[in-house]
Amino acid sequence: MNLQPTIKAQKSSKILLLSGGVGGAKMAEGFAFSQYAEQFSIIGNVADDQEFHGLWVSPDIDTLTYTLADEIDKEKGWGLKGESNRVLDQLKKLGSDTWMYLGDKDFATHIYRTEQRKQGVRPSEIASNIARSLGVNTPIILPTDDAIHNQVKTEDGWIDFQDYFVKHGCKPELLGFNITAIEDATATPEALKAIAEADLIVIAPSNPIVSIHPILSVPGIRDALEKASAFKVAVSPLINGKTVKGPADSMMKVAGYRSDVVGVADFYQGLIDGLVVDKQDLSVLPELSQRVEHVFPLDTLMFQRQEKIALAEAIVGLYQDAKATGYRAAGAQAQAQAAGVQESTLDLTSATQADSSHKPKPEPVL
Amino acid sequence: MNLQPTIKAQKSSKILLLSGGVGGAKMAEGFAFSQYAEQFSIIGNVADDQEFHGLWVSPDIDTLTYTLADEIDKEKGWGLKGESNRVLDQLKKLGSDTWMYLGDKDFATHIYRTEQRKQGVRPSEIASNIARSLGVNTPIILPTDDAIHNQVKTEDGWIDFQDYFVKHGCKPELLGFNITAIEDATATPEALKAIAEADLIVIAPSNPIVSIHPILSVPGIRDALEKASAFKVAVSPLINGKTVKGPADSMMKVAGYRSDVVGVADFYQGLIDGLVVDKQDLSVLPELSQRVEHVFPLDTLMFQRQEKIALAEAIVGLYQDAKATGYRAAGAQAQAQAAGVQESTLDLTSATQADSSHKPKPEPVL
Repeated sequence: MNLQPTIKAQKSSKILLLSGGVGGAKMAEGFAFSQYAEQFSIIGNVADDQEFHGLWVSPDIDTLTYTLADEIDKEKGWGLKGESNRVLDQLKKLGSDTWMYLGDKDFATHIYRTEQRKQGVRPSEIASNIARSLGVNTPIILPTDDAIHNQVKTEDGWIDFQDYFVKHGCKPELLGFNITAIEDATATPEALKAIAEADLIVIAPSNPIVSIHPILSVPGIRDALEKASAFKVAVSPLINGKTVKGPADSMMKVAGYRSDVVGVADFYQGLIDGLVVDKQDLSVLPELSQRVEHVFPLDTLMFQRQEKIALAEAIVGLYQDAKATGYRAAGAQAQAQAAGVQESTLDLTSATQADSSHKPKPEPVL
Repeated sequence: MNLQPTIKAQKSSKILLLSGGVGGAKMAEGFAFSQYAEQFSIIGNVADDQEFHGLWVSPDIDTLTYTLADEIDKEKGWGLKGESNRVLDQLKKLGSDTWMYLGDKDFATHIYRTEQRKQGVRPSEIASNIARSLGVNTPIILPTDDAIHNQVKTEDGWIDFQDYFVKHGCKPELLGFNITAIEDATATPEALKAIAEADLIVIAPSNPIVSIHPILSVPGIRDALEKASAFKVAVSPLINGKTVKGPADSMMKVAGYRSDVVGVADFYQGLIDGLVVDKQDLSVLPELSQRVEHVFPLDTLMFQRQEKIALAEAIVGLYQDAKATGYRAAGAQAQAQAAGVQESTLDLTSATQADSSHKPKPEPVL
């Protein structure tokens, strides 16, 4: 006789987070240190990967790993705590361009990753090995083992996202976005399996354009998400029309979206069952209700671990409520199709999209 | 009117050192910090190069560079002073095999070298760039830009020299030597030019088998040396039948040579005009005089920089004396041929050599 049906269901539910780096890592920390830690896995973003000093750096995966290992530099939100910069200083002495800060211990990660890749080990496996070695039990899954790469267009032409973001401090005017080699990328079996098996899929408050879009754009991933029976919730990275950190707000505009939670709802239209917005955005709830079935106003600003855990657990609670009241479990695809939204709506790499009042108007591959 | 002919001649003389790592670096330091610094260049050994953690490490070239940059760890005789091991500790944490000590600043050298090689920069140019960046003015010349590689045979088969030397602490019984890909290597133009232009060529007290032999074995180098008009002097690395450090003495035996200065004379027969031996080896002078035209007993143990400079300047003095008394300037080739010594005598990679009382009896490529 089962006396605790709700708790049992909850314990067996699988929670999957789609996450970028710094912003998403906060959400990841909330789940990984919550009571749902053992049911939790993450698909991270690899499109910001870049070579520095001939070494393969994977900023978003490392930020997730270091965060869950409790080794993150909390002030910066990325990199390892207690770092030194002996290697970088010496590389500078040798004449290398050292605009990207890499600490000594962090260098070890990149040296290890690069060597393993050279030896033919799958990037997914390397990421798992690094995470395990640092004591992380949460599966950090790569969407693809292929090299895909965010680029942004500026007046000077296409440049790597990290160059725009770090080297140029997000200053050049943005004219477009592109992900190189995305059409030829293959989704990892781990990612497809995690999506298919998940009960709750959460899209982290990460940059939709350069963190989440690359995950969704790996052939097969978006389709798997649309078909997945999971309850899908996005957490808006925009509060009051602004991001907590990073250029997501201005990027949304350039991509043809409103730079607020409505834009976020449009961006994920056809994909999500619910949207978590900050309580500061209560005024736009009427507009949102036309776009998303479930809108959840919560306190989404996360500073302390307890706030992160609280938000994670609140989202699980919302999912359980939706489940208890009988949410559509057939995936969002049917919903999207019923609403007349094309599958390619969120495809920033396709330039042939219809314009309408609230449909996305991307400005891709200029 | 030239009132100082000797000094003028001396100032314009070009001095070239053939050198391995730790032992040779002492000799290199002597010349580089002597009054002859500006006339001095070095051809270093690249056959101990090896990949660690996917990075190209060049132990002998680095030891020379760090020594001349005054950045060497004086206690160890290699590596940079004031090192830390943050990267190595972290690599260990990630599961890498870290038997070879590499300091953090040293890692920068290897990261830089590896990246530059990947970009197609010539290894010679990379070595020059590193040296220049660290303030070294002495040209450190590579004998070849191709990858050649010392191996030693043990009971377990062929292993890399660094594995034998560092990982196994020279403990396995040696059965033979080999340099991979040596036949296909091409001498660098810089090495051939330095040999052709030198007035005095000094072979450092380095390991003849694994440091000097690889330089001599690069096709074209030995021939250039034999044809060179320079006065050629080797400094014996063996004193009283022993090396100051390292396995040169036991290696000489395995290669079929006497493990003393006589063995050294045999090893360099046909190549050198003079041999510098330690004063502790006066008893074998009669034997040596049958093998080398000029034998110079000197204090060859070098601890302080002043002793290194003194030895370097003493060798230049000997050269000047020999020049003043009219040494054969036609190269050692004629001398070697007159003595009936075959060109291949020192070729450890050839197994077809005649045995005789004092001729080398190498045991190559077993």
